Amino acid sequence: MSYQAPLRDMRFVLHELFDVAGHCELLGNGLDRELIDGVLDEAARYTGEVVAPLNRNSDEQGCQLRDGAVTTPHGFREAYRQYVDNGWASMTGPVEFGGQGFPQLVAASFHEMLMAASLSFRVYSGLTEGAVLALHKHGSAALKQAYLAKMVSGQWTGTMCLTEPQAGTDLALLRTRAEPQADGSYKVSGSKIFISGGEQDLTENIVHLVLARLPDAPVGVKGISLLLVPKFIANPDGTPGTKNALSCGAIEHKMGIKGASTCVMNFDGATGWLIGGANQGLACMFTMMNDARFQVGLQGLGIAEAAFQGGLRYARERLQSRGLAGAVQPDKPADPIIVHPDVRRMLLTQKTLSEGSRMLAAYCARQLDLEHGHPDAAARKAAGKRAALLIPIVKAFFTDMGQEVASLGVQLYGGHGFIREWGMEQLMRDSRITQLYEGTNGIQALDLIRRKLLGDGGAELSALQAEFSELCDQQVDRPALAELAKTVQARLGEWRELSSEVIAACQRDVQEIGATSVDFLAYSAHVLLAGLWLQAAARAQDALDAGSGEAAFYQAKLLSADFYLRRVLPRASGHREALLGGAACLVALDEESFAF
Amino acid sequence: MSYQAPLRDMRFVLHELFDVAGHCELLGNGLDRELIDGVLDEAARYTGEVVAPLNRNSDEQGCQLRDGAVTTPHGFREAYRQYVDNGWASMTGPVEFGGQGFPQLVAASFHEMLMAASLSFRVYSGLTEGAVLALHKHGSAALKQAYLAKMVSGQWTGTMCLTEPQAGTDLALLRTRAEPQADGSYKVSGSKIFISGGEQDLTENIVHLVLARLPDAPVGVKGISLLLVPKFIANPDGTPGTKNALSCGAIEHKMGIKGASTCVMNFDGATGWLIGGANQGLACMFTMMNDARFQVGLQGLGIAEAAFQGGLRYARERLQSRGLAGAVQPDKPADPIIVHPDVRRMLLTQKTLSEGSRMLAAYCARQLDLEHGHPDAAARKAAGKRAALLIPIVKAFFTDMGQEVASLGVQLYGGHGFIREWGMEQLMRDSRITQLYEGTNGIQALDLIRRKLLGDGGAELSALQAEFSELCDQQVDRPALAELAKTVQARLGEWRELSSEVIAACQRDVQEIGATSVDFLAYSAHVLLAGLWLQAAARAQDALDAGSGEAAFYQAKLLSADFYLRRVLPRASGHREALLGGAACLVALDEESFAF
Repeated sequence: MSYQAPLRDMRFVLHELFDVAGHCELLGNGLDRELIDGVLDEAARYTGEVVAPLNRNSDEQGCQLRDGAVTTPHGFREAYRQYVDNGWASMTGPVEFGGQGFPQLVAASFHEMLMAASLSFRVYSGLTEGAVLALHKHGSAALKQAYLAKMVSGQWTGTMCLTEPQAGTDLALLRTRAEPQADGSYKVSGSKIFISGGEQDLTENIVHLVLARLPDAPVGVKGISLLLVPKFIANPDGTPGTKNALSCGAIEHKMGIKGASTCVMNFDGATGWLIGGANQGLACMFTMMNDARFQVGLQGLGIAEAAFQGGLRYARERLQSRGLAGAVQPDKPADPIIVHPDVRRMLLTQKTLSEGSRMLAAYCARQLDLEHGHPDAAARKAAGKRAALLIPIVKAFFTDMGQEVASLGVQLYGGHGFIREWGMEQLMRDSRITQLYEGTNGIQALDLIRRKLLGDGGAELSALQAEFSELCDQQVDRPALAELAKTVQARLGEWRELSSEVIAACQRDVQEIGATSVDFLAYSAHVLLAGLWLQAAARAQDALDAGSGEAAFYQAKLLSADFYLRRVLPRASGHREALLGGAACLVALDEESFAF
Repeated sequence: MSYQAPLRDMRFVLHELFDVAGHCELLGNGLDRELIDGVLDEAARYTGEVVAPLNRNSDEQGCQLRDGAVTTPHGFREAYRQYVDNGWASMTGPVEFGGQGFPQLVAASFHEMLMAASLSFRVYSGLTEGAVLALHKHGSAALKQAYLAKMVSGQWTGTMCLTEPQAGTDLALLRTRAEPQADGSYKVSGSKIFISGGEQDLTENIVHLVLARLPDAPVGVKGISLLLVPKFIANPDGTPGTKNALSCGAIEHKMGIKGASTCVMNFDGATGWLIGGANQGLACMFTMMNDARFQVGLQGLGIAEAAFQGGLRYARERLQSRGLAGAVQPDKPADPIIVHPDVRRMLLTQKTLSEGSRMLAAYCARQLDLEHGHPDAAARKAAGKRAALLIPIVKAFFTDMGQEVASLGVQLYGGHGFIREWGMEQLMRDSRITQLYEGTNGIQALDLIRRKLLGDGGAELSALQAEFSELCDQQVDRPALAELAKTVQARLGEWRELSSEVIAACQRDVQEIGATSVDFLAYSAHVLLAGLWLQAAARAQDALDAGSGEAAFYQAKLLSADFYLRRVLPRASGHREALLGGAACLVALDEESFAF
């Protein structure tokens, strides 16, 4: 399936909504508007011309495991070589290890493109970035010296080895063991499953970050340590040395992302080194958690954009039936299906969810950047809180949204949507994993309620709500925006009330945490997007007021905002009512009475 | 994946809610409770032990086309032989051609089991039943004599050849031609796509029902005729004779139902005979439309039940994390995930949507039976109207619901849900087609508004609403049911109002038909299920009041009704608000402005 990066919309978000040039100036990274636009243009070319054409075949061909070696789909090796050679791998890496230090606000656009072009291809590099973060922050100087530059450049990839058959969500149940050796290293033994890119043929070395227990470690999550366990131990000259005692025992047969190898990794007394202190593994993992979850959110967004493009293309071309009010193109045998209101409902749902999520992704990326790079410590802390609040929403909502938008893409194609060659059903299959990995979406929702909402009694959420409320106040007197602003303001008031009710309910009954979580997250996401759509409409109106030569683009933003508020935002009402239904009806039924 | 028919629930629906024995007495078909229960027991055995075990492999193996011949997955031939030999094929067929004349109310339970056990396997026989209906009603005596008994017995299968590359939803664009011959037959030429079971190795003959145009036929749907075009022309002695000029040119590579062959069928001057009059093809097709759409609805229900069973099994076994209020099974390393409220939310959503839909399926099946078999003509007509109103809801809502419930099944398994061997992702892939074929769900929604709601100004819907309203009045004074009855009554009032608003809006602006349709259908389905859950609760309370020995079963019905009304029904509010958002925001955007 063809894919073209939505550059105009990305520039709208970056420049017009979030002033990325000013953002870069504040961060002091030396990037300016011209450079950023140049990078995006080149990124669009690489993802559209090099990566996207590989995606359909990668699904058919998948990965092959033979004698412990994994072969990736045709073309992945060459595309990955370009990825490294052209510096895409090192975009966000730390400058002192050869990285380019791009802010997330810019990188998110590139990463969205990459996800859209081929989720399978992106998996290999995405996890490497997470591993770089953990190693950079917690690794010893010697470990960083030996491994980090190669990982930053993308010459070596990284993995995250967390899951075991009996330990998925619940890492307390981990069994992999690490025995200390006289030379300060550890012998790591155990079996890990679901290891993305655990084995592949793209790079000469793979650096595994492995969660394991040291002898006599405390039980539960407090007894988990993080170890670096390379496939080949690095020689002092930076070349891969001795092969380590680890191997890929099997690859999984999956619903989708078949071009990404998902491996069973066996560690048989493999040599590793501690990253961070003993029993500090979970804390080290948390370093990369925000980044990893944000990246998975972008996967949902990328898939959604790809599905929207596919749906729109077909809706414009496919001739079938006549418009409800009569023929729209009487010279043709039938009208293009885009004339039908229900087809437009599907397309506009795809469009406004994707574009709305793109704004929220940028909002969140900006906070991540400020958390790490704002010159002022208080501002860093504030941004960190805001990002922490948003991350579970971005991860869960974007991926649920991506699945829905992909399914709408299938629906737009009618029976053809079910046929593999059209590529739409692949988007559904590929995106389905995003709701599961990096913490299921149910776990994200628990995180939102438990750590983020109850963690500070709702203070950070109130601040976010106040920010959008102020935006409504600013726009409500502009005739073209008054109705939008009033609708958003009303929802914000409802959201504030609902937040208080949820906090009170959870304090009264701990079961309400799990009973309200998923619906509260979905509710919050829909209202957040409404706030961002108001912001988009405001900037569009500014441009129209200033006599922009791109009137159609800005007019479409206003109409899209209107559609979102009228036809998508109402879902919030359903989520609100459902969560107010409470926990009692969830816990009342005996386990034995679920089926007879 | 294992599957066990939910016999207790099916008996609840058949006997306790819909008095199937009384129903059969009215229809005069000689069936009684004991016989029906015996058939269901045997059906459960056949589907659970013979069909379900084939399903996982059928997905991996798929169908193969070689030299024009299709090989079905391993085991399908033997299972199909039993299907024919044991009389499952002839269950609903007309008695005068060897059928057993079972009412839909009973057959629906068997068919649901079959869909749940293997959607792929069911495809072959399901379409035959539709073809039998059309041939029986519209075929000439000679054609029926030659083909019908073999199709009723299942020895020969039937197909429906409608779709062409340029003509899917819009049959007006059909190009296949039928040229009259001197002997009264026709030469049929053209290419059809998406023909389920167009070629297979289960039976010695296949009877294609083909839509085509006669020379000088009027343009559009008024110029379409239906022809019977057998693979082998029947000899006078009932054996397959001359091979006809038709062939399978390709089979599709699909997202799911890989065990069902989906064929490109080429007719190269193949011999066929008219069914019904010239240019009466669409009317003949409508004969089987209700049945076919009802069957596809059952596919959604079957998949949902299978996904619920899979999810429940895993939620009871999988140990992961502790309950929010502390350990529930402290002797185990972790609690089974069914203790978590959000897991219960998913399971109960699966359960109440499946069981609720099972009630609606039975309600609808009863109307279909009465339409054809009630001794009184006025009652037949009334039942026909009721069935016609419900069919698009059953088809679209059940299949959307099936997809959702299957996706919840995947989610319940966490990362394992994405792995093929567990079988959950297959249910998602298999069910996705049900939202597309037999008229996309968008087309069902248009049918509901245009033909059913606007067709009689809302009269039939009002009658349905009044029926449920009366039920509320009957139950509102019983303390255990008062709250449920009030909630349902309030929704019924809202539904009535909404129906009037939709009718008025559509009369004002024809675009509102397509703008309100999908949300109105979903809204209506959710409220209908609420009414049926009240009915279930009422019967459960009756049984409890009578001191039933199955208190846990009936208590579960009451709790399930409560859950549905509190946590699922609220979605109706979202659909209501969304459709009131209107058509203007759908039609305002220029086609060129959907993307820049």
